[in-house]
Amino acid sequence: MRVLGIDPGSNITGYGIVEQQGNRLFHIDNGCIVTSTKSPLHLRLKEIYSGLQEIIQRYEPEAVSIENIFFSVNAGSALKLGQARGAAILSAVNADKEVFEYTPMQVKSAVVGYGKASKDQVQKMTKVLLNLPEVAQADAADALAVAICHINSAKILNAVRGKK
Amino acid sequence: MRVLGIDPGSNITGYGIVEQQGNRLFHIDNGCIVTSTKSPLHLRLKEIYSGLQEIIQRYEPEAVSIENIFFSVNAGSALKLGQARGAAILSAVNADKEVFEYTPMQVKSAVVGYGKASKDQVQKMTKVLLNLPEVAQADAADALAVAICHINSAKILNAVRGKK
Repeated sequence: MRVLGIDPGSNITGYGIVEQQGNRLFHIDNGCIVTSTKSPLHLRLKEIYSGLQEIIQRYEPEAVSIENIFFSVNAGSALKLGQARGAAILSAVNADKEVFEYTPMQVKSAVVGYGKASKDQVQKMTKVLLNLPEVAQADAADALAVAICHINSAKILNAVRGKK
Repeated sequence: MRVLGIDPGSNITGYGIVEQQGNRLFHIDNGCIVTSTKSPLHLRLKEIYSGLQEIIQRYEPEAVSIENIFFSVNAGSALKLGQARGAAILSAVNADKEVFEYTPMQVKSAVVGYGKASKDQVQKMTKVLLNLPEVAQADAADALAVAICHINSAKILNAVRGKK
């Protein structure tokens, strides 16, 4: 199973592609879509949308995994995050990909084994789990983490359903 | 000039199409895209996106106008609104339409002549300005108002640029 994880943001959207073969995890790619803060909003959303569409076409993931955030520092930043998140989700759904959402606590538990782990710990654990030469950029590491979270959840779900 | 105004929301997205011929405004259509609160988020965003794409194809507006909101009641509702807003903006930009944003104060000033007008006043004034048989639904009326706001602004902009 190949999963695209996304950590959306209006400035930086992290992405990570992780593949599971048997019980092993393989790192396929990770990176960031950085939008210009000088561009108008609609062009920035288009950049996120098109950037992710390109990644979906290149790597053909079977599922897309994204962090589900219920709160934010303030309403203004929540609105901006929501717009970026809407663009990311639409990019997946318009490419006929299933979209799965996980809470930050589920993501952290999946990679660090502790729901309140720090960003730094998530970065280090994705490096270890995926055998990366160095830690990924913070948003890309979060994207890899949410991809791993879905792979783990899918494993449990399939075990319940009686699949391998 | 034909303008599509959009008032996005995660439950109800209002839309309104207004055409300007000479100095007169004509009402073309208005309505709402209502998403099912039982559907998962990605399908609701897809409904908003696809619903607006259909309207853009049917009416071929020259521009899309949308309210720019800087604050909200709380971060949770701002995130939801942001997602719906992202879907609406992408629907326009993916159809190669120019997107214009106006503050609630600009919109209210354009239709009621008073920046702190009530929703009820906006509904009544859009009915009068567009000669509607009855008041439009509140979100659809807001969408008509933001379309009218863009027509007025474009008029001023073109006057400055020396166009008719």
